[in-house]
Amino acid sequence: MSGNTFGNNFTLTTFGESHGEAIGGVIDGCPAGLSIDLDLIQSELDRRKPGQSKIVTQRKESDKVHFFSGIYNSKTTGTPIGFMIPNENNKSVDYDHIKDVFRPSHADYTYHKKYGNRDFRGGGRSSARETACRVVGGAIAKQIINPISIQAFVSSVGNISVSSHYTDLNLDLSESNDVRCPDLEVAIQMETLIKEVKKKGDTVGGIITCVIKNVPIGIGNPVFDRLEAQLAKAMLSINACKGFEFGSGFEGTKMFGSDHNDYFNSDGTTKTNFSGGIQGGISNGMDIYFRVAFKPVATLLKSQPMLTISGEIIEVAGRGRHDACVVPRAVPIVEAMTALVLADFMI
Amino acid sequence: MSGNTFGNNFTLTTFGESHGEAIGGVIDGCPAGLSIDLDLIQSELDRRKPGQSKIVTQRKESDKVHFFSGIYNSKTTGTPIGFMIPNENNKSVDYDHIKDVFRPSHADYTYHKKYGNRDFRGGGRSSARETACRVVGGAIAKQIINPISIQAFVSSVGNISVSSHYTDLNLDLSESNDVRCPDLEVAIQMETLIKEVKKKGDTVGGIITCVIKNVPIGIGNPVFDRLEAQLAKAMLSINACKGFEFGSGFEGTKMFGSDHNDYFNSDGTTKTNFSGGIQGGISNGMDIYFRVAFKPVATLLKSQPMLTISGEIIEVAGRGRHDACVVPRAVPIVEAMTALVLADFMI
Amino acid sequence: MSGNTFGNNFTLTTFGESHGEAIGGVIDGCPAGLSIDLDLIQSELDRRKPGQSKIVTQRKESDKVHFFSGIYNSKTTGTPIGFMIPNENNKSVDYDHIKDVFRPSHADYTYHKKYGNRDFRGGGRSSARETACRVVGGAIAKQIINPISIQAFVSSVGNISVSSHYTDLNLDLSESNDVRCPDLEVAIQMETLIKEVKKKGDTVGGIITCVIKNVPIGIGNPVFDRLEAQLAKAMLSINACKGFEFGSGFEGTKMFGSDHNDYFNSDGTTKTNFSGGIQGGISNGMDIYFRVAFKPVATLLKSQPMLTISGEIIEVAGRGRHDACVVPRAVPIVEAMTALVLADFMI
Amino acid sequence: MSGNTFGNNFTLTTFGESHGEAIGGVIDGCPAGLSIDLDLIQSELDRRKPGQSKIVTQRKESDKVHFFSGIYNSKTTGTPIGFMIPNENNKSVDYDHIKDVFRPSHADYTYHKKYGNRDFRGGGRSSARETACRVVGGAIAKQIINPISIQAFVSSVGNISVSSHYTDLNLDLSESNDVRCPDLEVAIQMETLIKEVKKKGDTVGGIITCVIKNVPIGIGNPVFDRLEAQLAKAMLSINACKGFEFGSGFEGTKMFGSDHNDYFNSDGTTKTNFSGGIQGGISNGMDIYFRVAFKPVATLLKSQPMLTISGEIIEVAGRGRHDACVVPRAVPIVEAMTALVLADFMI
Repeated sequence: MSGNTFGNNFTLTTFGESHGEAIGGVIDGCPAGLSIDLDLIQSELDRRKPGQSKIVTQRKESDKVHFFSGIYNSKTTGTPIGFMIPNENNKSVDYDHIKDVFRPSHADYTYHKKYGNRDFRGGGRSSARETACRVVGGAIAKQIINPISIQAFVSSVGNISVSSHYTDLNLDLSESNDVRCPDLEVAIQMETLIKEVKKKGDTVGGIITCVIKNVPIGIGNPVFDRLEAQLAKAMLSINACKGFEFGSGFEGTKMFGSDHNDYFNSDGTTKTNFSGGIQGGISNGMDIYFRVAFKPVATLLKSQPMLTISGEIIEVAGRGRHDACVVPRAVPIVEAMTALVLADFMI
Repeated sequence: MSGNTFGNNFTLTTFGESHGEAIGGVIDGCPAGLSIDLDLIQSELDRRKPGQSKIVTQRKESDKVHFFSGIYNSKTTGTPIGFMIPNENNKSVDYDHIKDVFRPSHADYTYHKKYGNRDFRGGGRSSARETACRVVGGAIAKQIINPISIQAFVSSVGNISVSSHYTDLNLDLSESNDVRCPDLEVAIQMETLIKEVKKKGDTVGGIITCVIKNVPIGIGNPVFDRLEAQLAKAMLSINACKGFEFGSGFEGTKMFGSDHNDYFNSDGTTKTNFSGGIQGGISNGMDIYFRVAFKPVATLLKSQPMLTISGEIIEVAGRGRHDACVVPRAVPIVEAMTALVLADFMI
Repeated sequence: MSGNTFGNNFTLTTFGESHGEAIGGVIDGCPAGLSIDLDLIQSELDRRKPGQSKIVTQRKESDKVHFFSGIYNSKTTGTPIGFMIPNENNKSVDYDHIKDVFRPSHADYTYHKKYGNRDFRGGGRSSARETACRVVGGAIAKQIINPISIQAFVSSVGNISVSSHYTDLNLDLSESNDVRCPDLEVAIQMETLIKEVKKKGDTVGGIITCVIKNVPIGIGNPVFDRLEAQLAKAMLSINACKGFEFGSGFEGTKMFGSDHNDYFNSDGTTKTNFSGGIQGGISNGMDIYFRVAFKPVATLLKSQPMLTISGEIIEVAGRGRHDACVVPRAVPIVEAMTALVLADFMI
Repeated sequence: MSGNTFGNNFTLTTFGESHGEAIGGVIDGCPAGLSIDLDLIQSELDRRKPGQSKIVTQRKESDKVHFFSGIYNSKTTGTPIGFMIPNENNKSVDYDHIKDVFRPSHADYTYHKKYGNRDFRGGGRSSARETACRVVGGAIAKQIINPISIQAFVSSVGNISVSSHYTDLNLDLSESNDVRCPDLEVAIQMETLIKEVKKKGDTVGGIITCVIKNVPIGIGNPVFDRLEAQLAKAMLSINACKGFEFGSGFEGTKMFGSDHNDYFNSDGTTKTNFSGGIQGGISNGMDIYFRVAFKPVATLLKSQPMLTISGEIIEVAGRGRHDACVVPRAVPIVEAMTALVLADFMI
């Protein structure tokens, strides 16, 4: 396997399986002398961790990060930052009932076919647990790209969507509720839906919107390494992600150029922002915003038909503790990957 | 500037500006001894070139590719493939009227801000002309990944969309019409819309759907370098692209897991394919399909307000020969980038 | 800082400073299912560790490696191998006397000038302690490239050299003495010299010869990424290394082509091996052998003139525990870097 | 094949075979707005080209470089620089006599074994002709790293060596004679030796010394990507190179630390320079100097035993026009690779 490193200049390399002793990583390319707020890193991890609220998986992981190097007296030393998060919940007991079966729409089939003998240890790289390391890297990246702000929020769960444009919302309200939706009325509907779905042993998808403010002009390159291309790669590398669109996105394809063009003010800002803050691969100083689609989680508590290694289809009841909807916990992951992309361009 | 190379194992590096003498590139990582059909490369270029039909720009470029190395007697030698396409239409005359102004929603503003003095030569890297080199690279990649087939088509122009699922269409009909839409009735409506828009001096966006068949199981990696992540990066690196979704995409976020899960047949294939052929970053052997959003082209023939270098807003009438809708010519580019991604994973 | 990753396909990323809590790393690209002898990894570390004999530094570090992931039941899982070695001897007390001075021929001056404020933590990346992580990576690489064997030995210390060609030596004797020299009579002379030098508070340089046997034909690439080029980079990345030569090396420049050419046997082997097992960047199946020069260690116990931060030259007496000659402990490092180069090409 | 790109930030990708239509390359990462002296590029090529004097191969190639992009009105545009050098002498006639045989100590055996069917086109990547592209890249790099100066010269041919240290030589005299040796008396002896060797149909090796002046402090990284490691890789990637040493090199291994240490002056410069201008992987502002060993060219005009594809040993007389000693023409190649390394670190 390869592909465990993200970035070119500011890089994050991750290791660790969901059923192993620990996960962790190395952040390279971080300049020396930057102040790092370690509590902020932990608080980002807490936003992602299981068991944080009633609508997420009740699995218990304290997700405490431990740093080995690269940070001293709350300052970066400029050297690689090595870190580790112990796995506290790595007993394989929850999985014994599915040891010889492939779950539908789950990575275990492709992983098995690609890497040979199925191995819970190895297969644990496909687990969303790996994303905790991304949150650590992203929390450091966020502090490097200051004063750029990155705010993601849940804009839809199933059929329930926020109808306002992000510019009409107070994004600071996102963290006030378990769903992470800044429209508080919609948040309640979303929460209700997730609870209903959970009660049925089912799951549901959703969409996260991410807004980047205070972006300097000039981030990105005009050909292959466009800012939007790296953001798209970053988002589609998150488990369960099915799509990415920025600015006017898919809806913008229906528009005419004369309506879609963002006309300039004399200071170089634009009257509208269908462009989503990026022109020709390079940031133009306006807000960057994009939407990320997440499918319904494949692991259900409902009974489902599964494929056995010997080629039979059998009905298997789900067990264990899983998320009924992935988007509330995916919000800090979307922000982390965004921060990693920006830091990689800016260093 | 950097970011002029795509891929890690099978790489394409491109050079050349729209107003320079030639564009070209180097393809590295190609195995030796493969048969290469040079006519097929040229025919792919002809699908992209301007002036090929009434609904695309009437600019004239013959886009003849010349190879310097790496192919001998129609076989690859295993060495880097150097190639060049002369620019025949590189006079700057069409641009004199906009020399000191920035066009709205166009790369010239960000390019100028990032790289300093505006330079038509340098700025020419933002031109879609660079994508001709991608088509060359993709046409070689297509021959390497045989028997995988890649077929892209126009699935919407403005508000006009193909309503059938791709599995209900004969994709071989796509090339029978100028729009490249396999639903011939819809194709006529699209063509009519493009002509109307063109007559008004306006532009319109659209969506391309791409289908990959005969994909072996096991392409892609489970963490950062997922197959869908590389495809997303590849698509978002194409000029005017605003979004990417695969399988059930954004619509799939509205579904419940019990409806969205693709249940197995006993041979490992699945009854449905909401997954879009990829699980956990790795191909599962089912068709891979995705949709790519393109905004309406920013350059209009209509008069538009523009920003001058000295900070004034002035009304400027468009001139020159531009596409009223980019998607018919973007079809071979989408296919080429897809082929580059697959070849990069498979070598 | 960057440049903390070695390799392209089989990669080692290291972290950790000599004065921090721990050093460690991540090995990526390791195939699944390979048997790994953990004792062998530890025994390689023991060959490098301080305090192993009377002729090396008496600093105490047990150098026990701890693996977090990627190895399960003594088999690789194919996932990244994360590991850590605690620093037991990281008190700064030994260094207080040189806190504000730059030692001659030592990295502290350039490190300070490049990265700004001098920082014992950050500067600890220049410490040879980092090479313990390379030994871990190399010990795993050695097991992957089996049955290739890599044997390095000390071929000179100061003016005392082994006069026999490696083919006339029993390389298995190298580990029978503290110097790691297979010519036992010369080994005694070397040991005596090192002890004398140590007593004087001085240091002395030396040369390591490395021999690779059972090499398959075809490792390496013909242009920039030649096998000898990667080996040279690997060796010159080791602390205190001043030179690299393979096959006939510098002496071979004095020869005529008709004497230097290695004439073929009918099976493709050659009668002589001035080539050192590599032709045109690619292994030819004969033994690969090369020599690596190491300068005398800069840190002396003798009093020496040093430069203060304020630009004064003062005489400072050395303290602490340092190696009088680096080559005995560098033998496993040379082998480790060799193994990393080969594994990187072969995966 | 891969490995046709050198560098990470300032990159050179080369293409082309000695028996194909042209060689060429792409230089990426070059900043915009730099003045480029095109005559200087051509004059560097002229220093490398065959037929330039009586002591080099009399093969005729005018080696005129043609640029496609990236340079406009003698200034860089910041975009990739594409270039091409036509092959004028690419007839295979000279090689027919060795079509089915492998020459001793020549890349054709390993190339054949690695890539399968022997192919003069493909095998042409092993030809030193490829280095012309490096000279183009290096000539641009030299202009970027101004005011750093790079001067290489021939310091030995066979047994004849310059005995003075480079600091006692007037390096500007190197280009005054065909051998490129600044000690004019020694130059005459070298020239005589080369002519004798040539007359006998034999070849002889030699050493090139390279001196870099006006180096800023701080180039290089402390761990794997040390300045000396990249220089070593660069040199060992040149055809026929057998070794690299910098500063005190192999001779320095015989010294004691108290003699070898470079004691500081109060301005941070050092009284001696055994370090060769690099400490801990990072330049210290003193001159960087290193020596590069080149073996005697394997291709002789003398008759030699060769291996046929069917495994017979036959005597074959050499033909064609080859260098009797490679070092005079390798001087600009050593300088070019040095410039590429420095530019890659400094951009």
